[in-house]
Amino acid sequence: MDRRAFLRAGAGVGAVAAATAGLAAPALAQGRRTLTMVTSWGRGLAGVHDAAERTARLITDMTDGALTIDLKPAGELVGAFEVFDAVTAGQADIYHSADYYFLGQHPAFGFFATVPFGMTAQEMANWYYHGEGHALHNELSGQFGLKSFMAGNTGAQAGGWFNREINSAADLQGLKFRMPGLGGQALGKLGVSVQNVPGSEAYQALASGTIEATELIGPWPDEKAGFQEVAKFYYAAGFHEPAAALTLAFNGVLWQELPQAQQRLIEMIAAETNQWTLALFSSSHGPALQRLLAAGVQVRQFPDDVWDAFGRASAEVHAGNMGDALYAKVHDNYMASLRASSAWIRRSDGFYVGQRDRVLG
Amino acid sequence: MDRRAFLRAGAGVGAVAAATAGLAAPALAQGRRTLTMVTSWGRGLAGVHDAAERTARLITDMTDGALTIDLKPAGELVGAFEVFDAVTAGQADIYHSADYYFLGQHPAFGFFATVPFGMTAQEMANWYYHGEGHALHNELSGQFGLKSFMAGNTGAQAGGWFNREINSAADLQGLKFRMPGLGGQALGKLGVSVQNVPGSEAYQALASGTIEATELIGPWPDEKAGFQEVAKFYYAAGFHEPAAALTLAFNGVLWQELPQAQQRLIEMIAAETNQWTLALFSSSHGPALQRLLAAGVQVRQFPDDVWDAFGRASAEVHAGNMGDALYAKVHDNYMASLRASSAWIRRSDGFYVGQRDRVLG
Repeated sequence: MDRRAFLRAGAGVGAVAAATAGLAAPALAQGRRTLTMVTSWGRGLAGVHDAAERTARLITDMTDGALTIDLKPAGELVGAFEVFDAVTAGQADIYHSADYYFLGQHPAFGFFATVPFGMTAQEMANWYYHGEGHALHNELSGQFGLKSFMAGNTGAQAGGWFNREINSAADLQGLKFRMPGLGGQALGKLGVSVQNVPGSEAYQALASGTIEATELIGPWPDEKAGFQEVAKFYYAAGFHEPAAALTLAFNGVLWQELPQAQQRLIEMIAAETNQWTLALFSSSHGPALQRLLAAGVQVRQFPDDVWDAFGRASAEVHAGNMGDALYAKVHDNYMASLRASSAWIRRSDGFYVGQRDRVLG
Repeated sequence: MDRRAFLRAGAGVGAVAAATAGLAAPALAQGRRTLTMVTSWGRGLAGVHDAAERTARLITDMTDGALTIDLKPAGELVGAFEVFDAVTAGQADIYHSADYYFLGQHPAFGFFATVPFGMTAQEMANWYYHGEGHALHNELSGQFGLKSFMAGNTGAQAGGWFNREINSAADLQGLKFRMPGLGGQALGKLGVSVQNVPGSEAYQALASGTIEATELIGPWPDEKAGFQEVAKFYYAAGFHEPAAALTLAFNGVLWQELPQAQQRLIEMIAAETNQWTLALFSSSHGPALQRLLAAGVQVRQFPDDVWDAFGRASAEVHAGNMGDALYAKVHDNYMASLRASSAWIRRSDGFYVGQRDRVLG
């Protein structure tokens, strides 16, 4: 971030005052700054806006205002998908988003949000905090002048809302299905008519028949969006977003200017918010599911042959990107970590839950 | 904690100096204190000591030494299971332990570590951070003058090491099996000869034939303990500890004396360490499992009728405690949260992982 961008981003006034006022008070001595955080979420969007708001509030509170975060939800300073460019250009200081919105900047950003047939939230935490996940995230985002932290996870996203049942892969042919990202690319290979509709417009598109199916997140946000009013069949498990991680990314020049104590605190806030957000979604989905079932929603799972088709198409999507060296490097590291983690998780947590639910009924 | 105990615990010197020295320096103005943290873990015990050491180091570093934690692993100040009484009495300031060691103080402490057929680590985070888990933890521990935080989780613990296969519930009759806590009580109802052997002595007991079976944690710590040298059969999933949470507990009088900013920081460090520790275990078990398999260990699962027997016995153990009003209150809240969480997790993460592993092979 150059000096002009730094001042434009609203970070300069306190710092300049501190530098010229003899550092009279401890807070000024530390350099008070107001930092602008832009997000990809509308104000009040369940879970994801909560995560952004929480990181902003905690950074402000726990630095005692030395860093005051000015939160700008989607559309208030820049649009939902413009946050990446706003922070790399220094128009804003920080973004909170999901990095799969930035596949156009680099396809490997998908791994730091979620990819089809990818990691669960636990596998993601394993890779990020105890494998090479965080280092690779910053190798990638550093090429764009960013410093990035995982700061939230939606958990496994639902398969989506349909106005008819999906009994075989043939039923996907020509289906007007709203799904973004790599999952949407995979559906395209299966003959789906993939629709790019913003999440905020999905309800109206489904109600009007512009689309025949859509995914959003899971029972809690989906119920708030009202899909149960316009579609009868809810497919529980999806292949496309097994655990969408959220990212808190700082302009890299700004990051380097922060005192080490603030850097350490921000890293902790991001990581703790990761767990808090995942538990928020995970604890809210179950009660929402019960309400949806009570309202007559028919909960279904895709049959095996549909999952087989999803698998073939997802492998094709990955293969199409492997010519990029960094994509291949991240992919291979991610898949090795997934395989190493999952072998035990399947035999322990996975088997346990199956037996517990069978025995307790 | 009375004043004498406060001084005895080594916390007083800095605070007294600050109170009498005119508060010249900012650090002294905040009241520098050295606090003693006792743990139930030997130095170097995989994962659990790491979690204790990490909370101690982060509190010291992130308060810039205003709170300096003097870590005393098991046996250095008090024994592993004496940490609760040491902190309630003010002999130490903080403990890091697993609260199921304190069933003798109150049986409801089990819910804040793990209970047979209880929550997974994710369900526990849901209950603790977004349900009534943390509030109930402090309702219970507050009765003993403690302020408690979840600060680590081992994830689902393995079923254990056996020198012969368990093909039916009849094979448990008379088996000399080392298992502590409520799980051990349940085994006792099934005719098992339950052995109370400290974890640190389990290897020798199994090698010498004093016991015929033991559980410890999971592949990573179990491999370090060397059980693969003295038992051939490793049962992956267990019923007894589906996710053992660790607790960081402060003497309540001391806690009230801490500035709010330090309280908030400690709460964040505990919660972030919860995620870090779970991911440490979860990421380390998989590679350890591969090494154990390569070394010829036979990995098994208990058959359905053994799980049925575990279920009946575990229900009896719970029923035996329900006469206590607080136990019943915590039990009912815990089970309601578990049911609400698990209904969606089973249909989303659970179903997804099954399909992913089937499709990817």
